[in-house]
Amino acid sequence: MRFGNRLMQQAEDLSQFSQSEIGLTRTYLTAQHRQAGDYLLALMREAGMQADYDALGNVVGHYAGTDPDAPAIISGSHMDSVVNAGKYDGLFGVLSAIACVRDLHERGIKLAFPLEVVAFCDEEGVRFNVTMIGSAALSGHFDPAWLTRMDAEGISMSEALLAFGGDPAAWGPLRREVKRVACFIESHIEQGPVLLNEGYAVGVVTAIAGCTRVKISLAGLAGHAGTVPMPGRRDALAAAAEMTLAVERVGLERADRVVATVGKFEVAEGGAVNVIAGAVSFTIDLRSGDDAARHEALQTLRAALAEIAQRRGVTLDWQQFYALDAAPRDAGLQMQLAQAITHCGLEVRHLPSGAGHDAMQFAAATPTAMLFVRCGNGGISHNPLETMTADDAETATRVLLHFIEHFTLN
Amino acid sequence: MRFGNRLMQQAEDLSQFSQSEIGLTRTYLTAQHRQAGDYLLALMREAGMQADYDALGNVVGHYAGTDPDAPAIISGSHMDSVVNAGKYDGLFGVLSAIACVRDLHERGIKLAFPLEVVAFCDEEGVRFNVTMIGSAALSGHFDPAWLTRMDAEGISMSEALLAFGGDPAAWGPLRREVKRVACFIESHIEQGPVLLNEGYAVGVVTAIAGCTRVKISLAGLAGHAGTVPMPGRRDALAAAAEMTLAVERVGLERADRVVATVGKFEVAEGGAVNVIAGAVSFTIDLRSGDDAARHEALQTLRAALAEIAQRRGVTLDWQQFYALDAAPRDAGLQMQLAQAITHCGLEVRHLPSGAGHDAMQFAAATPTAMLFVRCGNGGISHNPLETMTADDAETATRVLLHFIEHFTLN
Repeated sequence: MRFGNRLMQQAEDLSQFSQSEIGLTRTYLTAQHRQAGDYLLALMREAGMQADYDALGNVVGHYAGTDPDAPAIISGSHMDSVVNAGKYDGLFGVLSAIACVRDLHERGIKLAFPLEVVAFCDEEGVRFNVTMIGSAALSGHFDPAWLTRMDAEGISMSEALLAFGGDPAAWGPLRREVKRVACFIESHIEQGPVLLNEGYAVGVVTAIAGCTRVKISLAGLAGHAGTVPMPGRRDALAAAAEMTLAVERVGLERADRVVATVGKFEVAEGGAVNVIAGAVSFTIDLRSGDDAARHEALQTLRAALAEIAQRRGVTLDWQQFYALDAAPRDAGLQMQLAQAITHCGLEVRHLPSGAGHDAMQFAAATPTAMLFVRCGNGGISHNPLETMTADDAETATRVLLHFIEHFTLN
Repeated sequence: MRFGNRLMQQAEDLSQFSQSEIGLTRTYLTAQHRQAGDYLLALMREAGMQADYDALGNVVGHYAGTDPDAPAIISGSHMDSVVNAGKYDGLFGVLSAIACVRDLHERGIKLAFPLEVVAFCDEEGVRFNVTMIGSAALSGHFDPAWLTRMDAEGISMSEALLAFGGDPAAWGPLRREVKRVACFIESHIEQGPVLLNEGYAVGVVTAIAGCTRVKISLAGLAGHAGTVPMPGRRDALAAAAEMTLAVERVGLERADRVVATVGKFEVAEGGAVNVIAGAVSFTIDLRSGDDAARHEALQTLRAALAEIAQRRGVTLDWQQFYALDAAPRDAGLQMQLAQAITHCGLEVRHLPSGAGHDAMQFAAATPTAMLFVRCGNGGISHNPLETMTADDAETATRVLLHFIEHFTLN
């Protein structure tokens, strides 16, 4: 095995750099960010790259090409984690890209294009509640207002950056000139069960799903659980329960192209065992790789919820607080990635990504592709139970290497 | 009007003795307990009673009868409140009983039976999380372990009693000898909409509903809201939503004799907009005046929830944490109360009480009856929007007076 076992060991090593005693938690600009960054820097340098932190704490490695005027291939993913995370989410995309460069370097191969490997500093957004900070900076979407955001302890991003040795004022020059980038390619664990269930080691991402999020607030009539007869109750909790099932049904009826989830669900003031709930709020997360399907599902849902609210005599406040269209991947790059998979002797499976990824940030101006790697354990991610096999890590890295080595500008 | 307007004014006066600036909150052994107690003592004495605080802070008035050996009629209700309460819950039962004595006294009438009016110190249980403290003491159900209970500030009931001028050691003698009590009669606002919806000013309580409370804990499989396809999800929140509707349905299908409510509903760790919930817990409150109906409903519900859990691949933990059988009212007393209503020119409506009341404490050993008074505003109670009309206060007090004046031992 050229890559698999070593990558497994590296992921294991990196999982030690955790803020939590048990499980993996590594957030932006912490001592653990530094430990993981130093580890990755050493790997990059050993792989023949010039590497360092940038002003925001991204770890960036350069492997020069033969043509000084050629635009770069950028590959990488994120090095931060959610709370109590898995070992492969994000990290695998960094490690597999470094492994590719190391292999090229050991074989004494220089490509025409320079190669840039990036470990993005913060994709998950745990500390400052802003996601994809690192990739936003490189792709030109960084918002300097983020620098004044506070973490839970009241430390601003700007203060934390200075303490880390970064430079909050220097975010501007991090932006890569569009004409200096040939493509962005990210390998990432699927974080879902599609490849696992269908028996594929890797897959080509067709689009990153668009997403609409809505907060629903219901006001019914609070009452005594013992004294108010059942007929005529205006129970906000029962109404919210019926709506939750309507959200699920809208997803199930469009299961080939939509997912719909109620994730938060709160009774006002916590509720009480002997009180009919007067107010309940919950969230809806609706995604699809197909924007038209998402809009249709949302309209159907809105009508269904309005009907339930009216029938049950509760008022409904519909607040859409987030919407992002799907980011389709570049067709030409998808084809090159599919060819790399075929070259490795595998069948090609195309699939959308339900989750957001750093690649989204680059998609607007740069040809962008994503390679998904099979996620074990039923597809569990954002959880210590997330698994990837050494065999799949091997396969994915071979595919990525072939893609990089045979990349051509469309 | 003999009683109504004065009672409205007294309820208004008493609502000023509140711990909260806005709304009424009056809990056990506070300065407001003292203020309200002093007000009631003055009313009792003015009405011709000997009156004082007892060792636990109950306010007790005595109106002697003509027969020194006759057992007493006890009437009253509670003087404490929930947080942000209405003005009539509990208090009305005290004020209407005092008004009856005052009327007898003004007319120079002594009954054969002595009359005892009690304003119970704590029925709601807000401060020490024990309900019906005062009526438990008089009826022989006081548990001295309660004295060591702490309030939210770490003050024990015992300490608070001493500071109030009470005597924690003297709870024992408060118990009324069963043979010295002829009956217990409580008038109380209905706290529900039955009398209001059907156009009755008052009603005879047939039974205080029995109640079973269950905590349900569900464990499904957490997952990413964007990456886990809809079919095959083991979403604990969607399962809990379906179960909530099953609870409601069990109530609706038995609406003439059962109420069923999900009041608390919590996603583990608060949930997140983009996470399929892995664990959810909720409570069920099931009541009926008919114990057999309650047990049947509970069994039906348990089977329905088990089926939902199994179908959805979530594990279900069913934890019954409270069960109390119905307390049927004394048939003879119900008849005497119905006669009093008829005497006042009204039709008699019998109805169960869904809520618990001080009267429950006496029901085991003493003939006990309850008179419900119409609750305005859709039946809202435990809320500043609770209302009662002067006309209904008048009617209820006339009924209570007739009952007391014509009471006969069965």
